Amino acid sequence: MSQLPNDAKSELDTHVLHRMSGQLSEKYAGTFTLETVERYFFESYATLGRTARVKTYLASIAGRFADDRLHALAQSMGAMPNEHPQVLFVCVQNAGRSQIAAALLSRISQGAVEVRSAGSLPAGEVHPFAVELLSERGINVEEAFPKPLTDDVVRAADYVITMGCGDTCPIYPGKQYLDWEIADPQDVTFEKANEIFSDIETRVNDLWERIKGS
Amino acid sequence: MSQLPNDAKSELDTHVLHRMSGQLSEKYAGTFTLETVERYFFESYATLGRTARVKTYLASIAGRFADDRLHALAQSMGAMPNEHPQVLFVCVQNAGRSQIAAALLSRISQGAVEVRSAGSLPAGEVHPFAVELLSERGINVEEAFPKPLTDDVVRAADYVITMGCGDTCPIYPGKQYLDWEIADPQDVTFEKANEIFSDIETRVNDLWERIKGS
Repeated sequence: MSQLPNDAKSELDTHVLHRMSGQLSEKYAGTFTLETVERYFFESYATLGRTARVKTYLASIAGRFADDRLHALAQSMGAMPNEHPQVLFVCVQNAGRSQIAAALLSRISQGAVEVRSAGSLPAGEVHPFAVELLSERGINVEEAFPKPLTDDVVRAADYVITMGCGDTCPIYPGKQYLDWEIADPQDVTFEKANEIFSDIETRVNDLWERIKGS
Repeated sequence: MSQLPNDAKSELDTHVLHRMSGQLSEKYAGTFTLETVERYFFESYATLGRTARVKTYLASIAGRFADDRLHALAQSMGAMPNEHPQVLFVCVQNAGRSQIAAALLSRISQGAVEVRSAGSLPAGEVHPFAVELLSERGINVEEAFPKPLTDDVVRAADYVITMGCGDTCPIYPGKQYLDWEIADPQDVTFEKANEIFSDIETRVNDLWERIKGS
């Protein structure tokens, strides 16, 4: 029975999370209590800590994740403006397919669509294939990270596009649920990954036409 | 691009979650707002939905999970009585080791310890070995289910015992963190599983002596 050493970094993170919660609660003043904002920060931190491969920037990444989740929740409640159609891509690991689809739709729509992505079993980091193939098209996803599917981002979505994640996504009325059958780019050759990328690109372009026309 | 059929069960679940949230918010009146209670319910539902193998009782299981998390959080805040030492067992899947340890400590302490368990990557169901070996000792874990490690249950704990889950557990001051090196009972023979069970049993008995003596 060994005693784990006290983890100085984690204590520092706790301090940082409290400070960031305080700052963020000002942004959401009148919408969410400090209690809710703090809970979102700390639970986001614990959730990402279970799967993230690199933990160096965990507090900062958890902060962005919590902020995005609170923003989605506020929009779904009508408490924050929701000017653009909201699209959520969900795959298993949020490392390949859903990251690629989200990055491509963000670019093609030039900010006219609010795009999010998530996974049913998030991986430790974005897949190198996805980073490389997007980078070749001038899209930088250095700041992207795999995120678990949460209730708040589903609520905010107008379109939910699932890829290979079965029935893990909560169903709410008033949304368009689409299921794309796309191969998993994990453990494939670069050539095959390129094909998958093109498949996603074609579907994203079609989706963008559909959103524009609606 | 196929349109998913509307899921009648999920809509029913949403209705049930709202109703259960209302009931539970009465239990936590003065401690948590309805907003917090509802968020806990819906996020617990979405989280378990990502990994649970059987989704038939998902709303009810999410209700118990949310209730236990809120209870832990209230205790950690000093808003609810915390009469007994609180022990949290964490392994990878919350399907074998941590379920066995939690069940054994619950029995040996006869309610004098509040016991919880969680996993860094929760499985879809409790491992059949665990169910069988506990059942042989007259312990029924039919109602147990694998749960992801959350921030709230770590906060409430006086003792956090980790088994094979690396550094995924948030570190807070004032707690006793113990790391047990115990083999994973997944994919082993029944004989080996029996050995692992005995190893856990010995350690749980030692822990119980230690808690009683503190």
